Amino acid sequence: MTVDPSPSTSTPDVPMRTEHDSMGEVQVPADALYAAQTARAVENFPISGQPVPPAIVHALALLKSAAAAVNAEFEVIDPDRARAIGEAADEVVQGRHDAHFPIDVYQTGSGTSTNMNVNEVVATLANRATGGEPTVHPNDHVNAGQSSNDTFPSAIRVAAARLVRDELLPALEHLEQSLADKAAEFADVVKAGRTHLMDAVPVTLGQEFGGYARQIELGRQRVRFAAETQVNELPLGGTAAGTGLNAHPEFAPRVIAEVSRRTGVDFVEAADHFEAQSTQDALVALSGELRVVAVSLTKICNDLRWMGSGPRAGLQEIQLPDLQPGSSIMPGKVNPVLPEATLMVCARVIGNDATVTFGGASGTFELNVMLPVMGQALVESITLLANSSRVLADRCISGITANIEHNRELAESSSAIVTPLNKYIGYEAAAAVAKQSLANRQTIREVVIERGHVERGELTEEQLDAALDVLAMTRPHS
Amino acid sequence: MTVDPSPSTSTPDVPMRTEHDSMGEVQVPADALYAAQTARAVENFPISGQPVPPAIVHALALLKSAAAAVNAEFEVIDPDRARAIGEAADEVVQGRHDAHFPIDVYQTGSGTSTNMNVNEVVATLANRATGGEPTVHPNDHVNAGQSSNDTFPSAIRVAAARLVRDELLPALEHLEQSLADKAAEFADVVKAGRTHLMDAVPVTLGQEFGGYARQIELGRQRVRFAAETQVNELPLGGTAAGTGLNAHPEFAPRVIAEVSRRTGVDFVEAADHFEAQSTQDALVALSGELRVVAVSLTKICNDLRWMGSGPRAGLQEIQLPDLQPGSSIMPGKVNPVLPEATLMVCARVIGNDATVTFGGASGTFELNVMLPVMGQALVESITLLANSSRVLADRCISGITANIEHNRELAESSSAIVTPLNKYIGYEAAAAVAKQSLANRQTIREVVIERGHVERGELTEEQLDAALDVLAMTRPHS
Amino acid sequence: MTVDPSPSTSTPDVPMRTEHDSMGEVQVPADALYAAQTARAVENFPISGQPVPPAIVHALALLKSAAAAVNAEFEVIDPDRARAIGEAADEVVQGRHDAHFPIDVYQTGSGTSTNMNVNEVVATLANRATGGEPTVHPNDHVNAGQSSNDTFPSAIRVAAARLVRDELLPALEHLEQSLADKAAEFADVVKAGRTHLMDAVPVTLGQEFGGYARQIELGRQRVRFAAETQVNELPLGGTAAGTGLNAHPEFAPRVIAEVSRRTGVDFVEAADHFEAQSTQDALVALSGELRVVAVSLTKICNDLRWMGSGPRAGLQEIQLPDLQPGSSIMPGKVNPVLPEATLMVCARVIGNDATVTFGGASGTFELNVMLPVMGQALVESITLLANSSRVLADRCISGITANIEHNRELAESSSAIVTPLNKYIGYEAAAAVAKQSLANRQTIREVVIERGHVERGELTEEQLDAALDVLAMTRPHS
Amino acid sequence: MTVDPSPSTSTPDVPMRTEHDSMGEVQVPADALYAAQTARAVENFPISGQPVPPAIVHALALLKSAAAAVNAEFEVIDPDRARAIGEAADEVVQGRHDAHFPIDVYQTGSGTSTNMNVNEVVATLANRATGGEPTVHPNDHVNAGQSSNDTFPSAIRVAAARLVRDELLPALEHLEQSLADKAAEFADVVKAGRTHLMDAVPVTLGQEFGGYARQIELGRQRVRFAAETQVNELPLGGTAAGTGLNAHPEFAPRVIAEVSRRTGVDFVEAADHFEAQSTQDALVALSGELRVVAVSLTKICNDLRWMGSGPRAGLQEIQLPDLQPGSSIMPGKVNPVLPEATLMVCARVIGNDATVTFGGASGTFELNVMLPVMGQALVESITLLANSSRVLADRCISGITANIEHNRELAESSSAIVTPLNKYIGYEAAAAVAKQSLANRQTIREVVIERGHVERGELTEEQLDAALDVLAMTRPHS
Repeated sequence: MTVDPSPSTSTPDVPMRTEHDSMGEVQVPADALYAAQTARAVENFPISGQPVPPAIVHALALLKSAAAAVNAEFEVIDPDRARAIGEAADEVVQGRHDAHFPIDVYQTGSGTSTNMNVNEVVATLANRATGGEPTVHPNDHVNAGQSSNDTFPSAIRVAAARLVRDELLPALEHLEQSLADKAAEFADVVKAGRTHLMDAVPVTLGQEFGGYARQIELGRQRVRFAAETQVNELPLGGTAAGTGLNAHPEFAPRVIAEVSRRTGVDFVEAADHFEAQSTQDALVALSGELRVVAVSLTKICNDLRWMGSGPRAGLQEIQLPDLQPGSSIMPGKVNPVLPEATLMVCARVIGNDATVTFGGASGTFELNVMLPVMGQALVESITLLANSSRVLADRCISGITANIEHNRELAESSSAIVTPLNKYIGYEAAAAVAKQSLANRQTIREVVIERGHVERGELTEEQLDAALDVLAMTRPHS
Repeated sequence: MTVDPSPSTSTPDVPMRTEHDSMGEVQVPADALYAAQTARAVENFPISGQPVPPAIVHALALLKSAAAAVNAEFEVIDPDRARAIGEAADEVVQGRHDAHFPIDVYQTGSGTSTNMNVNEVVATLANRATGGEPTVHPNDHVNAGQSSNDTFPSAIRVAAARLVRDELLPALEHLEQSLADKAAEFADVVKAGRTHLMDAVPVTLGQEFGGYARQIELGRQRVRFAAETQVNELPLGGTAAGTGLNAHPEFAPRVIAEVSRRTGVDFVEAADHFEAQSTQDALVALSGELRVVAVSLTKICNDLRWMGSGPRAGLQEIQLPDLQPGSSIMPGKVNPVLPEATLMVCARVIGNDATVTFGGASGTFELNVMLPVMGQALVESITLLANSSRVLADRCISGITANIEHNRELAESSSAIVTPLNKYIGYEAAAAVAKQSLANRQTIREVVIERGHVERGELTEEQLDAALDVLAMTRPHS
Repeated sequence: MTVDPSPSTSTPDVPMRTEHDSMGEVQVPADALYAAQTARAVENFPISGQPVPPAIVHALALLKSAAAAVNAEFEVIDPDRARAIGEAADEVVQGRHDAHFPIDVYQTGSGTSTNMNVNEVVATLANRATGGEPTVHPNDHVNAGQSSNDTFPSAIRVAAARLVRDELLPALEHLEQSLADKAAEFADVVKAGRTHLMDAVPVTLGQEFGGYARQIELGRQRVRFAAETQVNELPLGGTAAGTGLNAHPEFAPRVIAEVSRRTGVDFVEAADHFEAQSTQDALVALSGELRVVAVSLTKICNDLRWMGSGPRAGLQEIQLPDLQPGSSIMPGKVNPVLPEATLMVCARVIGNDATVTFGGASGTFELNVMLPVMGQALVESITLLANSSRVLADRCISGITANIEHNRELAESSSAIVTPLNKYIGYEAAAAVAKQSLANRQTIREVVIERGHVERGELTEEQLDAALDVLAMTRPHS
Repeated sequence: MTVDPSPSTSTPDVPMRTEHDSMGEVQVPADALYAAQTARAVENFPISGQPVPPAIVHALALLKSAAAAVNAEFEVIDPDRARAIGEAADEVVQGRHDAHFPIDVYQTGSGTSTNMNVNEVVATLANRATGGEPTVHPNDHVNAGQSSNDTFPSAIRVAAARLVRDELLPALEHLEQSLADKAAEFADVVKAGRTHLMDAVPVTLGQEFGGYARQIELGRQRVRFAAETQVNELPLGGTAAGTGLNAHPEFAPRVIAEVSRRTGVDFVEAADHFEAQSTQDALVALSGELRVVAVSLTKICNDLRWMGSGPRAGLQEIQLPDLQPGSSIMPGKVNPVLPEATLMVCARVIGNDATVTFGGASGTFELNVMLPVMGQALVESITLLANSSRVLADRCISGITANIEHNRELAESSSAIVTPLNKYIGYEAAAAVAKQSLANRQTIREVVIERGHVERGELTEEQLDAALDVLAMTRPHS
């Protein structure tokens, strides 16, 4: 696959050509595949330097390709034009012309500039391929039956749904498996439980990792629900305002069927086009579920960092893999860098979610005009969560080892192991035992005997020993 | 039903009695149903003056009542105590003793103080009922088989799930129906569409209300998903740290079955108790879906306010019911007060969601200690959305009338009605028509004829008239 | 001071009287001090059950009192009415009639209903005092020269500025002092530093508490800046839309001077009334500074909780005061309940800030109609931070003790104490020393000697011992 | 200025060289200026593909350059090495080696990887310049007297303070001026005021633009306060944990003086190094002020969009400059694209603020490990606000024209112009006038006369006419 280089927009002496649109003439770099409207938008929005994410551009091109085929079936455009448009759009889908989509994310809120960028690039490529006179028009042919107002939000949804299915869900499943593997490995590693950060009854390290795995499993379910039952409704077919004006009634279902076929994702036409264009509630909902994953990962990574804290002055329950020197000044220091990187991803996802929410609340009448920034934030959140989940699983979690003896010592030292005695001596007497144990640095066993609970027959020594088995405390159901 | 008055905690001369707990003696108002630990907590947390929401206290008491019955079956407590506990707890469930739960929301993060408050009040009532010597102990009997760490988050979930089912979902359905009714009523009211706030192709007022109804319908689906498949997993059975220590393995499933039976909500035991106690991801997920409802309502209320703007200098597309004088200085002014109140609810729900998210990300090891504030925020969001949805439907939406003639005039005046001509004369010629129409204040029809499109045979006058029918433009599929 | 009871609105059989406003007649509880518009609003907004915070109602009444005096000076109203209004309003300021302000926070977004509630109650009281025929009109006299649009946001600012000065700043100063006291007390308590949660070079516990004190000091500065240079600009004088229509040009400065005199806060008239009424940026700015205090407290409370973790399986660096039994199931457990309560306050403040931001971004043209919820959120954040700061200082921080020996042991066990050797043996050789020390559980001193650094003359044994003095490491500047 | 190309990391066949660090050997691209630790970090963090913002890298290099000079003065490093380091670092400051800083933002939370990247690149350049054997060591010489823990947060603050002073404040001042210019230009353009979106008393368009200008002026004050009194405190000098270990006590003040000299920004050493390293409250405070600017711009842009709405079915009060065709389907449509782009910037800034807040609340003990993502978010927010403010001023606001006649017509049609009559006929009679006017589509003047207010001598016809002069209503103070 060849990829063409970026058009030379920045240098002052670049050769230019003249293009026009409905507002008049514009100068465009001679080697640019785009035309007048793109050039206007490049000039109008020198704001962030960040282009619309390629995943969205590719999804737009995929819609153009499918639309051309369907428009040919309906004889809205002729077969030759349709074929040329389809082939040109497919090149864009493959990422071969990414450099020709230079418009800033912070552009018109409908994404019209990017929709026209795609229309123009596809028209240029199609006209080049056919040779002779330009016969493919960006609006009349590439955009036939469409409006930015239905294609751009559809493209965000197609991009998001694909990234969720292809990147995020597998990455979360991979992370979940790595956590579940550790849950199995550490099933018998008894350790001190902690509630309120204070010593609590014993648990196993495996139980903790099992909880993490379950968090991720539930996160996957939530993300899938949002992606597969909400985001999969495409606005396509509503055209300018949701009414479907200028589109054949069968246009949307057929294009969407084709997009579903090509992507393997089950997209459907929006049940209500006014809902689907004037609001982006489905994107807010997806973002909310991504945020829950970030919340889950925050908890997991904080636990991992604390368990690995030390090596002398911390909890030192586990050992994380050493990945790189940790300090420019403290020799020999190694830090939990992947949990930290993941926590920063979580902070970003939570911020992106605030952006998406604010954007989602900004729709008015027939259109929400926060689309590009919402699309960018969503694509970023999905990608960051997918990439960090994989790296966290592979380079951190899979290499964790447990400090087995130290964990058992801490578990046995906790006065909370008095808890099983409640049923023999009652909560208040047990509290007295715990306090004496802490104050005098005696074991719970010693104190129970010293205070006469065995002597008075409240429990036997055998019952006492059985009750104080810390591993047994973690499996009361068996 | 009698409701007992609040214990006289505030006055200096109130008669007091002496109670004790595992830390020693405490003075308690003589007429208080609670005991030592509650009194300590009242003193420790003079922060907000806001008690834990009664819905959560009632849910806790419901768990106590069901637990007593199950504990009797397992012979963990004897039948007489169980009966007394059950009857006492049921009184709390009915809200008869709300004044005896004075502990601040901003207390220990586990809600232990409130759990003990319930244990103490139930024990006091049970001991009173049995007369004679106190035989019911708050910890050993009322709390048997439980820990604050599994009961308090379970109570939040029971309260949230019930409020969602009993209050929010019916209210949203009611709102949806009122919007759908208006969608039907206004099905033929053609009006100017607006994208980017600028004149767009015509739509009907009914289509807009249909979109709103669909937003609410989707919102209900999302909230139900979160409530019925996530929040319905109860941590009960994990006891102190998730291991279930001190609880019979069948305790949780039987108690939960009883709670399901009494509430009619299908609760299940958490698949993983470590997930369910150390995190509250399910609450974050529910809050996220409530937030989407707030985002939807924001859009709807903003549209309603703008449609009703005027009566002279605004859009004056619809008339909202007059509810109250709108200004202390401008005579005769009437404002869209219910959409405004609803928008403020949305702002609060979005803020509550930030609180829940921050809380949800704060769990460590075996417990999340942000439970009371998360519970309060969730209960508040559910209740506010339910109440404002009902009031909005009943006092605002159901009384909306349309300014039918004015809407049609605006629709016909929009130059965007040139859009159906694209297929006859192409996008660029159509743009020239639109611009001339605006510049010279001519109708689109006049300009098309003047510019020779009919004369040149690009379309007939019949086609022109059919294309310019604004109501037909809103129904291109028929 | 007598406080009159709440009007009996809820019971069906309460005696009613008939009132009227510009919309017609309304039934009002016979004993209510308010009149028609309040009764309409009570009926219109059955949403949260939460009234507008008394602090805002009192501030509104203070404006009414000052306005009456100034209006008398300008002969806008006669002296008798002015005196009656002033005395009536002052009773409201003193909180004697709080029960007569029942309107929900979620009302009209301008707070007009509450402004009219104050106008009505003051008029009723004034008319009662004068006896005979009612001669004081809520709009024409009590509200003279004012509009809800300038009084209500002014009242929020007056309430916020007073609460900041009277409650929050002193509470923060108190907290800062308690932290500074501990910084002095713990100045020589050397302990292991922790960066990335991993063992770092030694610090003193006093240095950590000094950092906390500085955080609070900076927080006070920021809050004061926002309150004293931003929030102190009152919109009063803009009346309905910012133009000042119907108000004497000297009305606002004189009323504001009187309010400043009575409150001791230096309020000024807004430099631009359109900015001050159509936006509430100053409230968003204040909320942002409150949020930074919440962020500071989050860090401090998390550190305190971790330092106090244990008593066996945690860091056990300090001992927090025992306040209450910590667990309903684990006997003898005590938890860091005040840091937890404070952390929940922080979560709420962060949520309130999101509400205020969303509200602040919602202004349109001449008015922001999110005022009541913004006011409520701000008042709550200020109060919660003030109360929790005081309780945290008095019941937690002031009672903290240090585990001095344990802290020194941890500090000396950290391999990061190799850091001062960089200048003698270089970073890479020092890293080798640290690694060998950890691997073989040798002291740094042993390894340095064993690896020949002293023998090779890179440093003397005296230099080595001086370099490894952990307390000296914390004071390199001396 | 020559800029060297990016090292060829991605291609499999790129020639490599072997480097080592304290953990062992690493392969590095042969033409890379960086060394082992950078290569490890590139491999460890394949997460976002986004490098740390160049502004932060340049600021780090500036610290290195100044540190080398000061270290030479203190004879910590020799003059030749210092000179070589200084010259090398200055090249990085100038942006000549940006391609050699490839490490992902989502890396170790301290930014140590990027600090070491700078140390390595500077060492390589310095060693190249001196020729012969490598004598400059990344840690021992380039990093002398420093730690990532004091340099990296210092670099964020230097970058943020410079961008605020050089980019944001001038851009806001420029925007403010463009708004003030329009305020002057439109000083006499009377229009309908709108409160609650409903017709209110008249205002001038100039008053509205004056309010916008004041919002931006206040925003500048707040941002400057945060940048110049909070962010300007540099952590430098604290080294690893805030104690200053391994740094000369005069190191930080001298380096900071040099940085102040070179940047022209008045930086100071942090008053408390524990506060400055373990927390990043100053960054949260700055982000909060940036957010208020976003809130201000949201209000302004929404107003502009609504004022420009139409051209037939909206408010059409002003005309925004036409910048580009607005629709791919609706010919002739032009949209308010720059206000939209700016609104998306606001949504992003609000999201970034959530990220910074979450990060800021995540510090523990001696370090906050969310630094890179906080730095990135801040730099992005500052830059986006600066760029969008300039573009908005230059391409949108400066070209706005007013529809003067239409505005006056709307103003005069509003029934709220009855308001000045309150003082003649009272609020309730005035309300009756307004209602009749609206109901019967009569002018206020007609109704007043018809209802006999003039006849009854309540006001004269002259007074009536004077009272109803809409422009005079906007200047009641004159």
